[in-house]
Amino acid sequence: MGSTRVRIAIDAMGGDHAPGEIVAGALRAREELGVEVLLVGDPQQIKAALPPKTNFGQVEIVPAQEAIAMDEEPLSAVRRKPQASINVAMDLVKQQQADAVFSAGHSGAAMAAALLRLGRLPGIDRPAIGTVFPTIVAGKPVLVLDVGANVDCRPKFLEQFAVMGSAYSQYVLGTSEPKVGLLNIGEEDSKGNDAAVRAHQMLRENTQITFIGNAEGRDVLSGRFDVIVCDGFVGNVLLKFAEAVGEVILQILREELPQGLHGQIGSALLKPNLKRIKQRMDHAEHGGALLLGVAGVCFIGHGSSQAPSIFNAIRMAKEAVDNEVLQRIQSQYILERESG
Amino acid sequence: MGSTRVRIAIDAMGGDHAPGEIVAGALRAREELGVEVLLVGDPQQIKAALPPKTNFGQVEIVPAQEAIAMDEEPLSAVRRKPQASINVAMDLVKQQQADAVFSAGHSGAAMAAALLRLGRLPGIDRPAIGTVFPTIVAGKPVLVLDVGANVDCRPKFLEQFAVMGSAYSQYVLGTSEPKVGLLNIGEEDSKGNDAAVRAHQMLRENTQITFIGNAEGRDVLSGRFDVIVCDGFVGNVLLKFAEAVGEVILQILREELPQGLHGQIGSALLKPNLKRIKQRMDHAEHGGALLLGVAGVCFIGHGSSQAPSIFNAIRMAKEAVDNEVLQRIQSQYILERESG
Repeated sequence: MGSTRVRIAIDAMGGDHAPGEIVAGALRAREELGVEVLLVGDPQQIKAALPPKTNFGQVEIVPAQEAIAMDEEPLSAVRRKPQASINVAMDLVKQQQADAVFSAGHSGAAMAAALLRLGRLPGIDRPAIGTVFPTIVAGKPVLVLDVGANVDCRPKFLEQFAVMGSAYSQYVLGTSEPKVGLLNIGEEDSKGNDAAVRAHQMLRENTQITFIGNAEGRDVLSGRFDVIVCDGFVGNVLLKFAEAVGEVILQILREELPQGLHGQIGSALLKPNLKRIKQRMDHAEHGGALLLGVAGVCFIGHGSSQAPSIFNAIRMAKEAVDNEVLQRIQSQYILERESG
Repeated sequence: MGSTRVRIAIDAMGGDHAPGEIVAGALRAREELGVEVLLVGDPQQIKAALPPKTNFGQVEIVPAQEAIAMDEEPLSAVRRKPQASINVAMDLVKQQQADAVFSAGHSGAAMAAALLRLGRLPGIDRPAIGTVFPTIVAGKPVLVLDVGANVDCRPKFLEQFAVMGSAYSQYVLGTSEPKVGLLNIGEEDSKGNDAAVRAHQMLRENTQITFIGNAEGRDVLSGRFDVIVCDGFVGNVLLKFAEAVGEVILQILREELPQGLHGQIGSALLKPNLKRIKQRMDHAEHGGALLLGVAGVCFIGHGSSQAPSIFNAIRMAKEAVDNEVLQRIQSQYILERESG
């Protein structure tokens, strides 16, 4: 290989629309972003998904004999199938043949494979899944973590999420001095359960981040925060609720807007504007989720991801590699050890 | 008093728009629902909020010398101010001079006052705050509890929430055989933290309710569930997020829809339809929250409540009294003790 271009290992077998949409998104990313894509999976299926006139010499396919299904128990499946596409993709990073991994498959399996194959970053007890929500301020997303990797979190884990999230927000999302919040049930320092109160204290005292206090549910979309940390239980509920809300609202709009003659004409006139609204609310436009705290750049997409989401996630992965996010996170912990 | 009409004690001093909007909503409820309203608070302020031609003989004002502000620590404020309007309102229920209480003031203070003045229902360890979310199925709301009273919940508490919520859904919201779900991060029985797994098991074995399994964040608005139980931390985050989402979407619609000439004409034509959409998404249309598990019918409104929300909450309170929800809940626990 030896190219200086960013190389992304793509789990071509993961997701509801694999390999077709995965391959389509990857090829677009290769074209428009100048990244190298390594398509990991069953070569026959991948070749069948390539456009008719593809020059196979230009597309790198890395064979993997197995895949992990959405209903498999992640840890045991990852162990039982060493040749699963997600494992092979992780190994490419481990062996420095790729700079990052993307998968739209089983997110639990991606986390398990990352932990087993790549391990954790030094100083990190528990990796987290982070995802970016749009906010009411256009162009100012908020990174929420953890959204599902850790159902119970000690305050120390939340503090680590905050440090990692800040580095990501600064070096990938381009936020200068990211404002960090702790998801909680009130603004006051003393609010929440014991873990929340202790986490608040630790975040307050951490000099590596800019902690501005508790974030309530209503603050997530306000644009006041750049990073919000929470345990993976509440984060996961929130993420899935938010995804569903978007769909519910669009369905209500589709049902109610064209009612009556005025409604039909009005809706027709508004088509371009409605499309723009859909884009502002659409999760896919804002890229996938990422695993923070494992020793590699790993992005995961929703199982329902189609080519545009895949493309966006690969774009984010490239940014993370270009801006050396892992090194930034590690340097925080090395500094800490040296000064402590 | 001695009337057979339902009597609602209204905390006229609680809420951002007190007493004006509170009194307006209460008077409308008296007019349209045939309930008796007892306006609790500062007589001078209440009288000033009444319409000019009010026949004072028809409006019952119960004097209360104090009120609890939104920023006060609830338990100590409720103890320090025995003559606070929320305390006086609770006492009216305690002394059987009122059948229910409504307050749009400090919800923590309402809970504290209910606990101190009325106590818990027999068999209930922890009262919960329940609130009704609209779902994608028009006319089929879902009751979510707890949304803020208990930040840590033992599985047994969640089971009690389920029993109380089912009774409320059946006898106030008119659901036959309410379907109960446990808010969790996956559909499988084994998902979630230890508390969630144990709660799942207890709900599964409880013969008083119809438990249909875990509800993920995406299921809240799906209409598949009539009652969803969760701890007050995640419930509170979800509620506040949901309230904010509605506002965010409406703001995006207001910003994006009228863009351009077509947009302006289209938006004008769609005005009535947009109003209907706002109503479907509007929390106020679906009434306030309720305290379940205290020995009295207690409804609480959002601090920002205006007359229509107050009216709706009073309507729900009347339903709860008419349908003897407290007695229904109690009978579940009496039956249990007798059979156990």
